Amino acid sequence: MNNLVENNIWMMICTALVFFMHLGFSLLEIGLTRQKNTINILFKNIFIITVGLLLYCLVGFNLMYPGNFNGFIGFAGFGLDAPLSADNTLDLAYNTGYTYWTDFLFQGMFAATAATIVSGAVAERIKLGPFMIFVVIYISVIYPIAGSWKWGGGFLDDLGFYDFAGSTLVHSVGGWAALVGISLLGARTGKFDKDGNTLVILGHNIPLATAGVLILWLGWFGFNGGSVLSADPELTSLTLVTTCLAASAGGVASFIFSTILYKNYDLTMFLNGILGGLVSITAGADLMSPSEAIMIGGIAGVIIVLGVAFIDRLKLDDPVGAIAVHLICGVWGTLAVGIFGNLAGWSQFSSQLIGVASYAAICISSSFIIFFTLKKTMGIRVSEKEELEGLDLHEHGMNAYSDFRLNEH
Amino acid sequence: MNNLVENNIWMMICTALVFFMHLGFSLLEIGLTRQKNTINILFKNIFIITVGLLLYCLVGFNLMYPGNFNGFIGFAGFGLDAPLSADNTLDLAYNTGYTYWTDFLFQGMFAATAATIVSGAVAERIKLGPFMIFVVIYISVIYPIAGSWKWGGGFLDDLGFYDFAGSTLVHSVGGWAALVGISLLGARTGKFDKDGNTLVILGHNIPLATAGVLILWLGWFGFNGGSVLSADPELTSLTLVTTCLAASAGGVASFIFSTILYKNYDLTMFLNGILGGLVSITAGADLMSPSEAIMIGGIAGVIIVLGVAFIDRLKLDDPVGAIAVHLICGVWGTLAVGIFGNLAGWSQFSSQLIGVASYAAICISSSFIIFFTLKKTMGIRVSEKEELEGLDLHEHGMNAYSDFRLNEH
Amino acid sequence: MNNLVENNIWMMICTALVFFMHLGFSLLEIGLTRQKNTINILFKNIFIITVGLLLYCLVGFNLMYPGNFNGFIGFAGFGLDAPLSADNTLDLAYNTGYTYWTDFLFQGMFAATAATIVSGAVAERIKLGPFMIFVVIYISVIYPIAGSWKWGGGFLDDLGFYDFAGSTLVHSVGGWAALVGISLLGARTGKFDKDGNTLVILGHNIPLATAGVLILWLGWFGFNGGSVLSADPELTSLTLVTTCLAASAGGVASFIFSTILYKNYDLTMFLNGILGGLVSITAGADLMSPSEAIMIGGIAGVIIVLGVAFIDRLKLDDPVGAIAVHLICGVWGTLAVGIFGNLAGWSQFSSQLIGVASYAAICISSSFIIFFTLKKTMGIRVSEKEELEGLDLHEHGMNAYSDFRLNEH
Repeated sequence: MNNLVENNIWMMICTALVFFMHLGFSLLEIGLTRQKNTINILFKNIFIITVGLLLYCLVGFNLMYPGNFNGFIGFAGFGLDAPLSADNTLDLAYNTGYTYWTDFLFQGMFAATAATIVSGAVAERIKLGPFMIFVVIYISVIYPIAGSWKWGGGFLDDLGFYDFAGSTLVHSVGGWAALVGISLLGARTGKFDKDGNTLVILGHNIPLATAGVLILWLGWFGFNGGSVLSADPELTSLTLVTTCLAASAGGVASFIFSTILYKNYDLTMFLNGILGGLVSITAGADLMSPSEAIMIGGIAGVIIVLGVAFIDRLKLDDPVGAIAVHLICGVWGTLAVGIFGNLAGWSQFSSQLIGVASYAAICISSSFIIFFTLKKTMGIRVSEKEELEGLDLHEHGMNAYSDFRLNEH
Repeated sequence: MNNLVENNIWMMICTALVFFMHLGFSLLEIGLTRQKNTINILFKNIFIITVGLLLYCLVGFNLMYPGNFNGFIGFAGFGLDAPLSADNTLDLAYNTGYTYWTDFLFQGMFAATAATIVSGAVAERIKLGPFMIFVVIYISVIYPIAGSWKWGGGFLDDLGFYDFAGSTLVHSVGGWAALVGISLLGARTGKFDKDGNTLVILGHNIPLATAGVLILWLGWFGFNGGSVLSADPELTSLTLVTTCLAASAGGVASFIFSTILYKNYDLTMFLNGILGGLVSITAGADLMSPSEAIMIGGIAGVIIVLGVAFIDRLKLDDPVGAIAVHLICGVWGTLAVGIFGNLAGWSQFSSQLIGVASYAAICISSSFIIFFTLKKTMGIRVSEKEELEGLDLHEHGMNAYSDFRLNEH
Repeated sequence: MNNLVENNIWMMICTALVFFMHLGFSLLEIGLTRQKNTINILFKNIFIITVGLLLYCLVGFNLMYPGNFNGFIGFAGFGLDAPLSADNTLDLAYNTGYTYWTDFLFQGMFAATAATIVSGAVAERIKLGPFMIFVVIYISVIYPIAGSWKWGGGFLDDLGFYDFAGSTLVHSVGGWAALVGISLLGARTGKFDKDGNTLVILGHNIPLATAGVLILWLGWFGFNGGSVLSADPELTSLTLVTTCLAASAGGVASFIFSTILYKNYDLTMFLNGILGGLVSITAGADLMSPSEAIMIGGIAGVIIVLGVAFIDRLKLDDPVGAIAVHLICGVWGTLAVGIFGNLAGWSQFSSQLIGVASYAAICISSSFIIFFTLKKTMGIRVSEKEELEGLDLHEHGMNAYSDFRLNEH
C-alpha cells in the first residue's frame, strides 16, 4: 500500500480527464459535420457515455478483468464486487495501488471511448436505433473480451504483446468497427459524384471542432498518464512529455505535408495530425525518449494526410477522419513499439503484429456480424429524405441552433 | 497533520473543478434560452462568480463557519482571518486536513453555485439591477446562515440531518429561490397562450448546452469528491463511482421514460436527467453502493420528466428546468439518504424531512421578502418591448453573435 | 526528495491546466474578432502550441535554464538531456522536487503562452507566413533568453527582481511584442474613420469569448499554483486564493468603472477586467494577503478600462485588448510587488522598475527587428481585398461556420 493516497489521487484525476474526452469527441464530431445532424451526434455521444458506464458496471469490468481465466474469455460475475478486508471494510491492498472503485471508473471511461470513435465515422446517415443496439453489444461484450486478451492477462499478454494505453485495445477496436460500419452503410449522398469524384462536405462549426481537439489533448494527459496505473514520478512525467511531443510533431508534420501537397493551410488536417500523433504514441508512451516520440508522432502526421486521401480513394466516407486517426495511426503506433524505444526488436515487432491481427480478427468479424444483422433486419440507414432534411428534424424533432438571426454589418 | 500535502492537493483540484462548473452553468443556461438574451445571462453568471467570491471573503465564510455558536446564526467577523501558529506562520494543524486558504476557496466556489441556479430560472425577463441586488443578499447572508445550520455545526447537525455535498444546502437553496423568483416574475411572453396551452420556446444553441452539462458533470467530480474533505482513498473513489453511476442512470431513465411518453428522442431531457441524477446523489454520495446510486439516479431521471411537465402544468415558466433539476431532485436526494445506504431508517428519514422543511422555510421566506420588496420598489421585470427585442440590446447594447452570415448550400 | 511524488502530481496537474489555457486564448481571440478571420486565428494558436513545444524541446529549455552562466545568455545544448543517476536511471534528486520531465513540460507550456498574446493583438490583418516566422524566433530565442535573466538565475535574479509567475517574464514579454507588432502593422481598415474617430468592430461570438476567459481563469490555477514549484500546502493554497480574489476584484472594478463611464453593462470590459486582475496578481501571488490581492486586482480593473481607451486614443488597434491586459497590467502587477506584500519597499520597487525596463528593452528591440525585417522583405500585412473578404477564405480556403441556416421565429 505504498503511496496509496498519492496513486489514488493521480488516478482519480486521470479518470476525470478521460471522462472529459467525451466532450472533446462530441465537439469534434459535430464541428466536422453538418448542422442538420448535430443533435443526433450529440445524442449518440451522451448515450455512449451514460449507457457505457452502466454496462461496464453490469458486465464489462468483470469480462475484461476476470481474474485467472483461459486467456480468451472469462467472466467474474455481474455487477461490481468490491474486495473486502477481514473487518468488512474495503480491501485497500487490492492491487497495491489505487482502490477498486478508482480502478473500475478509470477503466469504465476507457470503455465508452471505443464506441465514440465509431459514432463519428457513421455520422449523418446511420439510424439511431440500430446504432444504439450496436453500441450496447460492442461496449458490453466485444470491447471487454478483446481487452481481456492483453490488459486482463490473456493470451496476448502471455505472448509479449505490448499496448501501454490502447493504440490497439481502444483506438483500433473503435477504428475497425468504424471501417466495417461505413462499408456497410455506404457514403453520404453527395460525397461522391457519378464520375467517382470526391466532393467536399464542409463541417459546420470549426471553432467547436478545434475546441474538441484541444480538449482531447488535455484528456490524453489522463488517458496516457493514468495508464501508468500509479503516480510513479518518472513514468508519469515521461509519459506526459512523450504524449505532448508526439501530438505536436503529428500536427506539425500534417500541416507541412498537406501544405506542400495542397498549397493550402488546412486547419482540419493540422488538427487530425495532432490526434494521429496522440493515438500513435499511446501504445508506447512510457517506452520512448522525447526524440523517438517526435519521430513516431511526425510519421503519424504524414500517415494522416495520406490516410485521409486513401480512404477517399476507396470510396469510403468517413466524415471526421476517424479511420485514419484511430485505426491507421493506432496500428502504426502499435507496430512502432517494435521499432522504437526500450522494447524495439524483431521479436517484439512480431508480437505487435500478432496483436494487431488478433484485434483485427475479433473486431472486424464481430462488428460485421452485428452491423450486417441489423442491416438485414431493421436497416441501418435513414431514408434519403431524412438524410437530406437532417436527422435532427426526423429523429429528434429539433434544431441545434433554433433562432440564429442574420445581422448584416 | 496526517496526509496534509495529499489532502490539500486533492482539495485544491476539487476547488478548481467546482470553479469550472460556472462555465458549465453559463453554457447550459444560454444554450437553452434565446439568442437575444445571451449576453445578459453570461453577464449574470460572471457577476455571480466574481461578486460571490468577494462577498464570501468579506462575510460569507465567517457567517457559515462561525465556530461555536447558538446553532441558528453566528458571525466570526469580517474578512479572512488565517489561524497562526506560535511562530506567526500559518497554522497548518488548523483542521487536521488541508489549509485554511483551501478551505475558504472550496467553500467560496460552492456559495456562488446557489445563486447561479436562480439565474437560469429567471432568465429572459428579469431586470439586471434587481437581480444583482438579490444575488448580493442571497450569497452574502442567506446561503451562509442556512449553511451554518448543518455544515457550520448548527441545530440541524445536532438533529442528525445529513447532507454530504449539498443536495439541500446548495441545490435546494438555489431551487427554492428560483421557485419564488419565477412565481413573482411571471412567465415569459409567449410561453403560455390564452387557452392555457404551453408553447415551446426553443433554446438557441444546443451544442453549448450539451457542453455545459458535460462540464457540470466534470465539475461534480470536485463538488462531491471534494466534499469528503480529505483525499481518503476509499471515500473519494467510492464517491466518484456513485456520482458517475447516478448521473448515467438519471440520463438513461429520463431518455427512456421521455421516449415512451413523447415518442421522441429528446436530447434536452437526456441532459436534464443527467443533472437530476447528479443533484440527487449529492446528499449521500459517500453512503451508497453502486446499485443504490443507480436506483437513486434512475428515480431522479423519471422525476425530471414528470417534474418538468408538472412545472408547466402549474403555469410556471422555468426556461432551463432548474426547479425540476435542483429543487425537486435535491429534495429527492436528501430524502433518499433515509431510504437507501448506510444511514437508512425511519429516524434518519424524519431527520431528513426536518432538514428539507427547515431549508424550505428560510429560503422561501427570505427570497420572497427580497424579491417582493424589489418588485414593489424597483420592479423586477423588464418592459414588454425590452423582452421582445431582447435584454442584450437594451441592457448591454450588444449582440452575442454580431455578424453571422448566411451561407446557402 | 521529500514529497517528490506529491510535488510531481501537483506540477503535472498544473502543467495540464496551463496547456488548457491555449484553448482559452483561442476562444477569447476568435470570440472578440470577426467571423471571417476565425480559421486564421485558430490556425495561429494551434501552430503556437505545437511548434512552441517542439522548439522549447529543441533549444528553448536549455537557453532558459543554462545552469551556471554569465547572467545574460547561456546555452546548455540542443534537445532534452535528462540527468541520470549512477545506475543510469533518471536522477530523481535533480531539483529536490518534481522530475526533469515535469520541469520541461511545465516550462514549455509557459513558453507558448507569450506568443499567443501577440496573436490576438495582430489578428485580422497579419499575413500568416511572417507571423509564423516571428513566432518561431520569438519562442525559441527571445523568450528563453529573456526568461533566463530571472528564472534561469541571471543578472536580474542577482539584482533582487521578483516575478513569481510571469507578469513580466510571460505577459509583458508577449505584450511588448504585441505593441510593436500593431504599431508596424497599422489598424484594421474601418477601425478609425477619416476624422480620427474610433469605430467599434464587434466580436462575432461572445459566448465563446466568455468561455475563453473562464478557461483562462481555470488555467491560472495551474499557472500561478504551479509556479510555487512544489505542492507546499500553505503557498499553493494562498496563491490560489490571491489569484481568484484578484480576478474577481479586477472584473468587478472594471464592471463598475465602465458602467459609470459609459452607462452600459459591458460584458467585454467585465471579462477583460478579470484577465487584468489575473495578470496583475501573477508577479506576487505568493506574497500578498487576500486584501492586498483584492487591491491589486481592483486597481488592474480600473487600469483596463483606462488602458483600452488609451490604446484607442493612440490610434493603435488591438482587437482583443491584449496590450491593456497583458502589457499594462503586467507592468502594474510587477511594480505592485514593491508596493504591497512581504517584499514591499523602495529597494524592491526600484528592482522591479529595473526588471520592467530590462524586459522592455529586449522585447521592444528584438520584436522590432524581427517585424521590421519581415515587413521590408515579405510584407506583414495582407492585401486590402484579403482583409475585406477575410483571411479564412484567402489563406485557408474555408469558412469557420459553413452552413448556418436562417431560422426565423
